[in-house]
Amino acid sequence: MKDVHATLASSLESFRAELFDFLRIPSVSARSEHDEDTRKAGAWVVERMRTAGLTAELLETDGHPVALGEWRGAGPDAPTLLIYGHYDVQPAEPLELWTSPPFEPEVRDGRIYARGAADDKGQLFLHLAALHILLGTRGSLPVNVVVLAEGEEEVGSPNLLPFVERWQERLAADAVVISDSAMFAEGLPSLLFSLRGLAYAEIRVQGARSDLHSGAYGGAVPNPAMALARILATLHDETGRITLPGFYDDVVAWDEETRAGVAALPFDEEAFREGTGAPGLSGEAGFGTLERLWVRPTCEVNGLLSGYTGQGAKTVLPAQAMAKVSFRLVPDQDPARVIAQLRSHVAQVAPTGVTVEVVELHGGRPWRARPGGVFFEAARSALEEAFGVPPVLTGEGGSIPIVTEFERILGAGAILLGFALPGANMHAPDEWFPDNHLERGIETLLAFYSRLDASFPASSAPAGPAGSSGTDANR
Amino acid sequence: MKDVHATLASSLESFRAELFDFLRIPSVSARSEHDEDTRKAGAWVVERMRTAGLTAELLETDGHPVALGEWRGAGPDAPTLLIYGHYDVQPAEPLELWTSPPFEPEVRDGRIYARGAADDKGQLFLHLAALHILLGTRGSLPVNVVVLAEGEEEVGSPNLLPFVERWQERLAADAVVISDSAMFAEGLPSLLFSLRGLAYAEIRVQGARSDLHSGAYGGAVPNPAMALARILATLHDETGRITLPGFYDDVVAWDEETRAGVAALPFDEEAFREGTGAPGLSGEAGFGTLERLWVRPTCEVNGLLSGYTGQGAKTVLPAQAMAKVSFRLVPDQDPARVIAQLRSHVAQVAPTGVTVEVVELHGGRPWRARPGGVFFEAARSALEEAFGVPPVLTGEGGSIPIVTEFERILGAGAILLGFALPGANMHAPDEWFPDNHLERGIETLLAFYSRLDASFPASSAPAGPAGSSGTDANR
Repeated sequence: MKDVHATLASSLESFRAELFDFLRIPSVSARSEHDEDTRKAGAWVVERMRTAGLTAELLETDGHPVALGEWRGAGPDAPTLLIYGHYDVQPAEPLELWTSPPFEPEVRDGRIYARGAADDKGQLFLHLAALHILLGTRGSLPVNVVVLAEGEEEVGSPNLLPFVERWQERLAADAVVISDSAMFAEGLPSLLFSLRGLAYAEIRVQGARSDLHSGAYGGAVPNPAMALARILATLHDETGRITLPGFYDDVVAWDEETRAGVAALPFDEEAFREGTGAPGLSGEAGFGTLERLWVRPTCEVNGLLSGYTGQGAKTVLPAQAMAKVSFRLVPDQDPARVIAQLRSHVAQVAPTGVTVEVVELHGGRPWRARPGGVFFEAARSALEEAFGVPPVLTGEGGSIPIVTEFERILGAGAILLGFALPGANMHAPDEWFPDNHLERGIETLLAFYSRLDASFPASSAPAGPAGSSGTDANR
Repeated sequence: MKDVHATLASSLESFRAELFDFLRIPSVSARSEHDEDTRKAGAWVVERMRTAGLTAELLETDGHPVALGEWRGAGPDAPTLLIYGHYDVQPAEPLELWTSPPFEPEVRDGRIYARGAADDKGQLFLHLAALHILLGTRGSLPVNVVVLAEGEEEVGSPNLLPFVERWQERLAADAVVISDSAMFAEGLPSLLFSLRGLAYAEIRVQGARSDLHSGAYGGAVPNPAMALARILATLHDETGRITLPGFYDDVVAWDEETRAGVAALPFDEEAFREGTGAPGLSGEAGFGTLERLWVRPTCEVNGLLSGYTGQGAKTVLPAQAMAKVSFRLVPDQDPARVIAQLRSHVAQVAPTGVTVEVVELHGGRPWRARPGGVFFEAARSALEEAFGVPPVLTGEGGSIPIVTEFERILGAGAILLGFALPGANMHAPDEWFPDNHLERGIETLLAFYSRLDASFPASSAPAGPAGSSGTDANR
């Protein structure tokens, strides 16, 4: 490893300068006036992939193109690693809240400030730099590598799934590494062990044909807003547990290691509460805040609308009432099954005199990492080597639909390996990435490939059936 | 009575022609382009009052003027009757839905079609015509009469209360007669026995400082929309009874005559339900639909708002949720007391982790007629004489704030004596008034004054303390 570390040390300044070039491109995918900039950033990535030693091209989609780089020198029998990232960034507005201009990167107090520094240009660049060093120094990698950098992550990746389906064979991989998240705390490297899924529906209650006078009709004609409130109030019991029959049947218990790990995390509950501004925290009885956020399913009302909502008093008996209701799911809950449970529960508890409809709006499956696989364990020990402490396993309450899609379509287990820090302002002014994580992140990846070297020595790559070798590494 | 009936018979054609003149004036108080028309209608009323034998003038307010007519020939010791009506009308739009133009009255199938035919020009005119006949034929009335016709009823009477307070002494009366409502059914004359009051509030629930990501925070940070639903669901028990402690303490039981009368009304519940379009009717157990509408208090949600209410799915954990909640009140409930009960109930049931505020928005007291008084009984037997059947007593689920204000400020009991028929389209296209009720209505009023004649014979008017005679008649 001496050679690669020496190269890293000597290249760090130029790497930083290159990253700054990348950050200077205002590749705001949401703004059509930046379409050319966005494409330019994609082309920049392709060029940087080539410099690193990959073959690379810009592949068109119905939106911004995908920068795809490949190195297949490990041979058809070696495992393949897919690295996913994105070169587009969030809009920078409100500009007046930035200390320095968003597209003029600068280092202050050990932080690189720029739009995209953390999300995700800075983290994507770590991978390109690590590959550059390894291919430049050694000329080879222990695994085949495909790098997919899309340009539409900040607008919901509308063309990524079709892209992955179209290029399914070319993207076939044994593991996917994504560096687009944050560590739990400074000095505490982290690996994500879960993402929650989502089942999102709208409950629509209809009473009278049209709004009525609440004096002339109130008391005898059913009130759909009141009916809706009564329905929503049945979704949790007094302990905060969700009441849908069968809802918890598919919830897989978490292993002791994970639960103990979560319990041991240095989490300041009062600081978390203060950060939200809520008068208090609450949730399912018997679980701590991090468990409620990461390993337990939820049921939330995301929106309510009925009748008169302007200023003052209007004596209307509404004809309709609507609630957006969503569930965050954990393995192995299935969004379609949860919507069906909601539908049957609502039919059961709906008051008489109104019609109630449950409309499914959106769904996504939950995801859980599978520690123990070669790639996951390589990432774990690489983080320990680079940061000097073993990584913690953390959860994520939100959903990243593409992760489960990668697993579903490509059959590749995902590893979410984030290097940003909490409070990185990923979608806010003054986005930053820790300057020393440029070196530390590349070191981690070098160590990661070094671990894979040990697992898949080039000379002894098993000559199993084509495409099957390494298959068990991270499934 | 022969003389007056002969006059009515011979004048009917010219009365109808006069009413048509009145209906031709587009006195749409809500539209400033009709300000001049509205004033013109007020002036028309003043002129018609004078022709009838009253002294009359147009009194200014901050909005449209009040047409005030007076006949004080019964002397200071005789009782005084205040007749309230309005000369303004609702906007006529949508014009294309009118069979004949709204301000070109015409008779079709025994109905006078025009904007204002029922609400309220046609009914106000009945009073002017009856006074015209009596003063023209007899030269006197058994009571002093004040006629107050305002021009802002259709815009919420913003200047009426200040007007009544300013002219309190001039308007002092022993009874107020209002003809601005409908009979229960054709051939079934009606007297109103009650109006419900109103207590209107907004419940505001606050969780986090601002909307949060429902994935990143959901499950641990309280959801104000869910909290609001749980609060609203506690406002009724399973029998539809309102749960606020003390809520029913001030509800006065209705007398057997009223309840029996309501039960005997020819009410088609299925036709009522079909009219609303609601899949079913529901309400407080143990009471029929008319009782639920007229003699029982209610609690309604008038509006709901929280979080994301647009199309599709947005994974937001709302910071706030709001419900407009109102109560219809019955004698002797007090709006302020009910709001206080709501406030204390909400504080009791509010989930932890959120702050809840109850903001009072509007209130009005319930009203109940006091049958047995001279004026009320005169109206009752006059209706029987004119229509051939005794009037039914009906309730009204809505509120007419000015009724209780008249009683409060002037000390005059109100009599709501309506001659329109159900389905009169008062605020809709093709408004109509039954043509034969022009004659029947005037007949009723002639009989009404004839009954008062018997109660207050001019020669024997009691010479009690000034302003006190007749005082007990209808309090």
